[in-house]
Amino acid sequence: MTDQKGFENKITPRSEDYSQWYLDIIKAADLADYSPVKGCMIIKPNGYSLWERVQEVLNKEFKKHQVQNAYFPMLIPEKLLKREEAHVEGFAPEVAVVTHAGGAKLDEPLILRPTSETIMYEVFKDWIHSYRDLPLKINQWANVIRWEMRTKPFLRTTEFLWQEGHTVHKDEAEADACAREMLAVYEKFFADYMAIPILVGVKSESEKFAGALRTYSCEAMMQDGKALQIATSHNLGDNFAKAFDIKFLNEQNEMVYGWQTSWGLSTRSIGGLIMTHSDDKGFVIPPMMASTHVVIVPIIPKPEQKESIEEKAQSVAELIRVKGYNVHVDTRDMRHGEKYFEWEKKGVPIRIEIGPKDIENNSVVAVRRDTGEKEPVAIEQLVDKVTVLLNAIQVNLLERAKSMRTENTVSVDTWDEFKQALEDKKFILAHWDGTSETEKIIKDETAATVRCIPLDSVDEEGVCIKTGKPSQRRVIFAKSH
Amino acid sequence: MTDQKGFENKITPRSEDYSQWYLDIIKAADLADYSPVKGCMIIKPNGYSLWERVQEVLNKEFKKHQVQNAYFPMLIPEKLLKREEAHVEGFAPEVAVVTHAGGAKLDEPLILRPTSETIMYEVFKDWIHSYRDLPLKINQWANVIRWEMRTKPFLRTTEFLWQEGHTVHKDEAEADACAREMLAVYEKFFADYMAIPILVGVKSESEKFAGALRTYSCEAMMQDGKALQIATSHNLGDNFAKAFDIKFLNEQNEMVYGWQTSWGLSTRSIGGLIMTHSDDKGFVIPPMMASTHVVIVPIIPKPEQKESIEEKAQSVAELIRVKGYNVHVDTRDMRHGEKYFEWEKKGVPIRIEIGPKDIENNSVVAVRRDTGEKEPVAIEQLVDKVTVLLNAIQVNLLERAKSMRTENTVSVDTWDEFKQALEDKKFILAHWDGTSETEKIIKDETAATVRCIPLDSVDEEGVCIKTGKPSQRRVIFAKSH
Repeated sequence: MTDQKGFENKITPRSEDYSQWYLDIIKAADLADYSPVKGCMIIKPNGYSLWERVQEVLNKEFKKHQVQNAYFPMLIPEKLLKREEAHVEGFAPEVAVVTHAGGAKLDEPLILRPTSETIMYEVFKDWIHSYRDLPLKINQWANVIRWEMRTKPFLRTTEFLWQEGHTVHKDEAEADACAREMLAVYEKFFADYMAIPILVGVKSESEKFAGALRTYSCEAMMQDGKALQIATSHNLGDNFAKAFDIKFLNEQNEMVYGWQTSWGLSTRSIGGLIMTHSDDKGFVIPPMMASTHVVIVPIIPKPEQKESIEEKAQSVAELIRVKGYNVHVDTRDMRHGEKYFEWEKKGVPIRIEIGPKDIENNSVVAVRRDTGEKEPVAIEQLVDKVTVLLNAIQVNLLERAKSMRTENTVSVDTWDEFKQALEDKKFILAHWDGTSETEKIIKDETAATVRCIPLDSVDEEGVCIKTGKPSQRRVIFAKSH
Repeated sequence: MTDQKGFENKITPRSEDYSQWYLDIIKAADLADYSPVKGCMIIKPNGYSLWERVQEVLNKEFKKHQVQNAYFPMLIPEKLLKREEAHVEGFAPEVAVVTHAGGAKLDEPLILRPTSETIMYEVFKDWIHSYRDLPLKINQWANVIRWEMRTKPFLRTTEFLWQEGHTVHKDEAEADACAREMLAVYEKFFADYMAIPILVGVKSESEKFAGALRTYSCEAMMQDGKALQIATSHNLGDNFAKAFDIKFLNEQNEMVYGWQTSWGLSTRSIGGLIMTHSDDKGFVIPPMMASTHVVIVPIIPKPEQKESIEEKAQSVAELIRVKGYNVHVDTRDMRHGEKYFEWEKKGVPIRIEIGPKDIENNSVVAVRRDTGEKEPVAIEQLVDKVTVLLNAIQVNLLERAKSMRTENTVSVDTWDEFKQALEDKKFILAHWDGTSETEKIIKDETAATVRCIPLDSVDEEGVCIKTGKPSQRRVIFAKSH
């Protein structure tokens, strides 16, 4: 789809206005559009292809863990949501309610799913009878609605797309192991495909999922030093099982409650992808996420050269396609400089330029999107070179993001250092007394929250930076999106 | 997922109660479940895997036609729906309305999409400026809500899943060609994958899509002789373009309206698949739609033989998997007869039985789900035999359905013959005067409607079976699901 506004788009530099830069990138790369409904966005083909890639990769991973896809209704009777106390408290303020349908008022209002624990667990109880039915592992790809006040494309929208996995296990240990396994699936997906380094950890009490025993999360650092919670996995304990009466006959022939998990990753991850790698020229797509790996731009000084140069470009494209890469040859009637500019904005990993001189030398020029490096490549070496470059780009993006995070993470031991570090836009490793009260005081004063208690944190005696009370380990504080 | 109720399930014979038979098949094959919300079903993993297959195949086909996937909001401002007169008239009675969200009453009610013409076309007008932006071809996979009074799993549910394609073209001829191309994509999909023979034709005025200039449809005959409208493709003319102001600068530098199409296929097609091929023993899955092609059931007369027989079964499975087929080895602790019964109900195309005698003879027994035919197969020939059998099943299912339709389609020339043919549960080729009035009289009296005016119908002078007025061609009448 041609974005007519494309070429004129100006991208605000990150340093000037990070928030505007993010919106400019989305527009420049034609990823999404605003819709006539407040807070709901349209995911355009360039954006949606990223989501399709997420689905493709995660479906394969989930299958390895014996997860089965299914689909549950998006309408939930209001009374079901109310069944688990902490859950309804967390979600009631953001639900949208259907009160009328088919021309009449409904007897009972229906809510649009903000998440599907309640509607799923209401039937899980009929699907599970004995330990032989366990573990039950169900996933669905769906749209959910959460009424948000301040919205931003991909990062926080009233309607968003996600996958939500829901499992039932025979005991708490197996449920917790499952929650951590799925967390590891996400962590690996972000590292290997999205090239986003992840901090995995446990959420504090006040930041955990409404109804969970324990929430694990994937936290990523964006280029403004803020954290993005980019996927979560919950150990639900037996909270929902008790509320929904999910029982089974165990091997000892006793009726006992099941133990559950839920875990999700949404289109918010696309927002994280955009914010992690893009630069002031536009979007940068990690090769493992790209639907177009290479764009070929023919350089045509004289109209009479058009046919032969484009023919060569097409034959070069075919060579590369044989390796399984997607290659686009841009034959539009535009100046090649404009095309370079456009494909840079759209983030295609490699641009290949081919003109009359290149054809004479039986070579092309390859340009990396991540570094901008240009180099001539002999056509006979091109296929191998494309593989090498794509791998190098993928590795570089992850390494660059890791370095950025390392450089911007500090350990602090005093409240003054803490405030200074926040002003410097750092992730902060600090001692905290572990109470929600102290967390709230810190949040009210600085807007920073405990992002997570890292899974790899080491025991270390210390005192809380705010209250001076004893602490056993450092946690990660940061402002967040 | 184990269906505990599985083995006890009784399947009502088709001849006794077709409607109950259909529900029994869904339960026996564990395809769907009822939900706590009236009219909304849960698509269980066995059912959802069929939908995933639909998505996989159609996405590939759509791509060949340069269709791009995107995603639009499911909430639509009420005023947008009202923009096109015929459209709102058709859909207003079945919409569900969100009146409250985020704890407050909304200023303007939002409806849940019953289809997405309005929300898409409201932004298409901003995406299209000149003929260079055309054709625009967008598809989305989404859930839609239509408040239905009488619902039936897959066939008619309040919420259903579908794909909806929406295109804009430079002129009417190109739009009509696109609508027919996509109709052909559906027709081919049903024939080649679902093994469902399709009648393609044009809908009568009273049966066409609300807002369309012309509706093309795919009609299939179910085993009760009723028709199922299983996919539609609409030439929207410039009706919506005028209502939504979709204009572009043509090559002559004039601002003109675009010409549009929309086309959709839903989870209803799964209902059609179930009803076309299943028998009184259970579901029958065409191999091209199956996620499991072969199930291997080890026969273990004595416990001490279990290990060696299952080992052999696994090695046979590996042999077949090399060819790209999905093979399941059923090692559950159950009698093999129960397993046969269960896999028959679930419709897996080929069952392979392997016991001690088979191992001695270096052979297995292969059983076709469609015909029940059993034959011994030497293991060294098994891989080729599986391919042969799967192809044979696929061909047989389509041929069987074709024969059924041919045998149950009649040409009639009088009103008495017409009524008799309906009682005999036939598709009827008859002359009709082409008016909505006559169609309504016939429908009120017999419940039969014009299913379509076949695209391959030949000109033939005749007189309407009801009014005696002149007619140019025969059309297809039938009762429908």
